[in-house]
Amino acid sequence: MDKPIEIDTDLIKRGHETYLRHISADCVIFGFHENELRVLLLKWKGDGPWCLPGGFVRKEDSLETSATRIVKERTGLDNIFLKQFHVFSAPDRERKKELMPYAAQGSWLMERFVTVGFYALVEFSKVSPQPDLISSECTWWDVHSVPKNMFLDHDDIFEKALQTLRMSLNDHPIGYELLPTKFTMPELQRLYETILDNSLDRRNFQKKMLSLGILERLKERKTGGAHKAPYLYKFNKAKYDKALKQGLKGGF
Amino acid sequence: MDKPIEIDTDLIKRGHETYLRHISADCVIFGFHENELRVLLLKWKGDGPWCLPGGFVRKEDSLETSATRIVKERTGLDNIFLKQFHVFSAPDRERKKELMPYAAQGSWLMERFVTVGFYALVEFSKVSPQPDLISSECTWWDVHSVPKNMFLDHDDIFEKALQTLRMSLNDHPIGYELLPTKFTMPELQRLYETILDNSLDRRNFQKKMLSLGILERLKERKTGGAHKAPYLYKFNKAKYDKALKQGLKGGF
Repeated sequence: MDKPIEIDTDLIKRGHETYLRHISADCVIFGFHENELRVLLLKWKGDGPWCLPGGFVRKEDSLETSATRIVKERTGLDNIFLKQFHVFSAPDRERKKELMPYAAQGSWLMERFVTVGFYALVEFSKVSPQPDLISSECTWWDVHSVPKNMFLDHDDIFEKALQTLRMSLNDHPIGYELLPTKFTMPELQRLYETILDNSLDRRNFQKKMLSLGILERLKERKTGGAHKAPYLYKFNKAKYDKALKQGLKGGF
Repeated sequence: MDKPIEIDTDLIKRGHETYLRHISADCVIFGFHENELRVLLLKWKGDGPWCLPGGFVRKEDSLETSATRIVKERTGLDNIFLKQFHVFSAPDRERKKELMPYAAQGSWLMERFVTVGFYALVEFSKVSPQPDLISSECTWWDVHSVPKNMFLDHDDIFEKALQTLRMSLNDHPIGYELLPTKFTMPELQRLYETILDNSLDRRNFQKKMLSLGILERLKERKTGGAHKAPYLYKFNKAKYDKALKQGLKGGF
């Protein structure tokens, strides 16, 4: 690390007048496109470390409002639906002195922060992330090869988010924002396989998906392939939304 | 409300030297015994409202450590395994002036708090809850008839915890701490039915439970009943623990 991280002096000195002390939000934004799963990371200027887009909670805002604002300010992405998944509160979650400019010593920024992790899943070809003023890069990384030794405990936050996303497939539907309106069963299966990083049995997958009651088979079939044209499906949005809220049936 | 809530003057004046500002933990402790599901609530002295056992985070502790300490201090229950489930951060989460003594005005206690909800499930005949100094009662309530208008947003925290517990049955095992070492399938089914507040089909339940791979059928059968003696089961602890961590199979 050559230089300390650059931070707005006003934020160092007077940020605690605007934001709650000790509380932050960090966002793990997964991008999906053509069967690839990636995550959006920022790199601090001045040869600083990679980190998740994160920030603070305004005194008049909820954490959810703050996370949405943070993502917009730090990456340019708008209207991302974020979901909180875990609170990280190790007592040593303090910004390291060597990473911060001299002016920050004694600032509220150097105190201990408890951070709330949020995650989102977006179709990454539809968005154009842009780094903010304190970042030199804002880049999609393949989830298999994210840089190690990110800022603070961001390695752990990323891993926990990925684990949560995978677990969420057991009781929540996925795909509405990520697939075309009409899709084939193999396309849906590839979405699951990509997230799970695992191949699935075709018949079992189809049987399971149909049993969930969130899909409608259309009369039309997909055309253009060499083989028998596969059926097209779409989500029943009302049942999909209900399952998002109450969990998928198939449990107890 | 006749009198303001009594609070330790030292906590009002100097609590922020010991605890992180703006952050608290509230604990929803579910008790299970003889097919009843209850929740543990405290009542503030001086005709104050009912509330969940809650408290603050010491500067040197994680939230998990704090939640365990809070439950011990406020209810006398020791070594309860608590799991965080949601962060409640509405901007108006402030203690109401009318509930607090005059001395608390301007105190860190009157600032806005973001609270992290934790839940636990215990066998309630094994524990003897005791109210702390600021509470007049510490009582198990049937989950169907908890008092309304609890402190702050504690009604919502309780509801969200109950919903989370029910959802958790879809992908996590339950029962190891709550059932005898050897139990019958109907006993296990009643545990699920009580939590879900719903009756389940006997055959489907048995089929589903056996498919999870966490049960071992014993050679002995339960004796003493009028009908054919039912099989006894026990949990395979290694598989149970793995499922607790990774989620139950039967998903994708």
